[in-house]
Amino acid sequence: MHVSVQKNRLAEAVSQVMKAVSSKTTIPILTGIKISADPDGIRLTGSNSDISIMSFIPAEDQDQEVAVIDTPGSVVLPGRLFSEVVRKFPNDKILIESDSRQITKITSGSSEFNLNGLDPEEYPNLPVINEKKVISIRKDLLRDVIRQTVYAVSVSETRPVLTGVKWSLKNGRLACVATDSHRLAQRSVPVASGSAAEESRDVVIPGSSLTELVKLLDDNDDENADLVMTSNQILFQLNNVQFYSRILDGNYPDTSRLIPQDSKTTLTLPTRGLYQAIERASILAKEERNNIVKLRAEDGHVEISSQSLELGRVFETLQVEEFEGEPMRIAFSAKFMMDALGKIDDSNVRIYFVGPMRPIIIRPIGDDNILMLILPIRTF
Amino acid sequence: MHVSVQKNRLAEAVSQVMKAVSSKTTIPILTGIKISADPDGIRLTGSNSDISIMSFIPAEDQDQEVAVIDTPGSVVLPGRLFSEVVRKFPNDKILIESDSRQITKITSGSSEFNLNGLDPEEYPNLPVINEKKVISIRKDLLRDVIRQTVYAVSVSETRPVLTGVKWSLKNGRLACVATDSHRLAQRSVPVASGSAAEESRDVVIPGSSLTELVKLLDDNDDENADLVMTSNQILFQLNNVQFYSRILDGNYPDTSRLIPQDSKTTLTLPTRGLYQAIERASILAKEERNNIVKLRAEDGHVEISSQSLELGRVFETLQVEEFEGEPMRIAFSAKFMMDALGKIDDSNVRIYFVGPMRPIIIRPIGDDNILMLILPIRTF
Repeated sequence: MHVSVQKNRLAEAVSQVMKAVSSKTTIPILTGIKISADPDGIRLTGSNSDISIMSFIPAEDQDQEVAVIDTPGSVVLPGRLFSEVVRKFPNDKILIESDSRQITKITSGSSEFNLNGLDPEEYPNLPVINEKKVISIRKDLLRDVIRQTVYAVSVSETRPVLTGVKWSLKNGRLACVATDSHRLAQRSVPVASGSAAEESRDVVIPGSSLTELVKLLDDNDDENADLVMTSNQILFQLNNVQFYSRILDGNYPDTSRLIPQDSKTTLTLPTRGLYQAIERASILAKEERNNIVKLRAEDGHVEISSQSLELGRVFETLQVEEFEGEPMRIAFSAKFMMDALGKIDDSNVRIYFVGPMRPIIIRPIGDDNILMLILPIRTF
Repeated sequence: MHVSVQKNRLAEAVSQVMKAVSSKTTIPILTGIKISADPDGIRLTGSNSDISIMSFIPAEDQDQEVAVIDTPGSVVLPGRLFSEVVRKFPNDKILIESDSRQITKITSGSSEFNLNGLDPEEYPNLPVINEKKVISIRKDLLRDVIRQTVYAVSVSETRPVLTGVKWSLKNGRLACVATDSHRLAQRSVPVASGSAAEESRDVVIPGSSLTELVKLLDDNDDENADLVMTSNQILFQLNNVQFYSRILDGNYPDTSRLIPQDSKTTLTLPTRGLYQAIERASILAKEERNNIVKLRAEDGHVEISSQSLELGRVFETLQVEEFEGEPMRIAFSAKFMMDALGKIDDSNVRIYFVGPMRPIIIRPIGDDNILMLILPIRTF
């Protein structure tokens, strides 16, 4: 292999595929990045047991020369090291040359590295996806739907399927739900188009995969991403990046019956004001192991409080925008409530209480497609 | 005590005194901040075994009302907690009220904290400084002289006096030197004025104290700070902040004989170019435990190199601005050289070599008052 490539394009591709490279893997070659050069460009690949990311650097992009492929070929280089070298190179142009023993000379300006590479034949192949049915979804919606659900997955491996987010495709909509059995988050978004848009299909995607995927999605990108689902893999195609994740086995529980349909008390509150009041109450609550805050609602105002025997007490008063139903006293995890409120972009939030030991429902005012649920904690 | 105070002024003072508050102290009251209100303003104090910081919030500042003291008094509040509460308060005005049992009500807007305070009588007094002789020094010079020496103090307690920086006042100049016996940094600056400016005096100040002090000094502040030295304390007076540090006991070694007076090879190199070449060479060198890079100098160019048996080799070539003397091969710690170069603001640096096992001297071109020394490492 003998190629030259623009530093900023190489650095971008390296940082994308590094999201799949772990330094603590039991398979040594997976600490590396595979670099393959064809006449059309350079492909970088990073993999771990859950995800694989392939980033393509075209030889030419918008009539600009990005890379020159003198001799095609491939090599596997130590990922963390290669990433640091590329970032710190002095010059805009980087030359990569590898020989048959995988010794790879990388030069830029007056800097020359000779790295011991590994045999690319030993690098695992990307998953093969034969499925041709594609779903398209706007990237900014994809980003939102992940951010608003993935925080609620379980971090415990007791029930592995709960470490994933369940994605259900039905009637042209994608519904996502995550729960760790103490809280739940769900959101649905329209599917933009695609040959599989009208099909029905359920998959459970590891939360950790989605957390990495979301880092590859820009904030304000209304272009579409393409998705292909198979029985054991899901592929996301984003411009020059292909992101593969494995699918979790196991039956995801039916979560619809967890969501109460009635409400004894309904409050409308400013999202940010409520978040900050709970955050302050949590300054004391988190000194106790449980981080519990109490909420007392009656017509006209809400009081948030917490205490620590050793340190003291805190009271926060909030004006209620709207109050419906009975007075209510309830206690919950400050962290869980802040996690949920922090994912709601609407300036007002509506909270539904059924009783002190029944699930609390949190929804933005403007969007019926978002629902957060947290279980209360018995203290009163 | 019953006071009200502007949030931003209180938050600033709290963050200043928190630099002296440690959460892992064996004296529980020192995890607190002492708050004392007098008719002229509010004093906050934080202390640990090395330093004490007192920050004063005047009741009036430039004809603006900053604090209202309704009832003078004092209390000690848990430092970390109080700091977080003040920062997160919703309103620009904070009310503090403490009763005789030290229960302290702190309110801001609709937020109310009741914290269990501690008895201010049990808080240690600030050091008493009777010395009237004052030295004045420009704050930006004070900042530079600390930054350019304190990095070289010893982190080992084997010879406690080496964990400090030696400050020598003589002939209207302050000379600072630090060494951990593998490297050395020294810089002298003029003393601006003051009643003790012409005296001779030596003290050794703990490096950790200076590291905290420098955080209280702005980058571009050409006003003066006042210093008072006694046999066991040094006091820095910076506007509304008083910073006390203990002085280290013990005889500081005579470092002047460590500095070679001759040179066999002298190189003039671009500071940043050299730093970055060593930084890249260090990518491989730091994978080996010692982080050693080699330098080979001959007329016209310098080569920096390092290798890792497992990973590979790196060569960096630098153009020399000026070369005097014999060709030289030498090896040294990449970290030590980068630490020294990173403290030099001049765009060019001059390096003096006496031999492969003799100290290396690094100086900026423009300033004779700065000298960095590192010992080489035997490898060739």
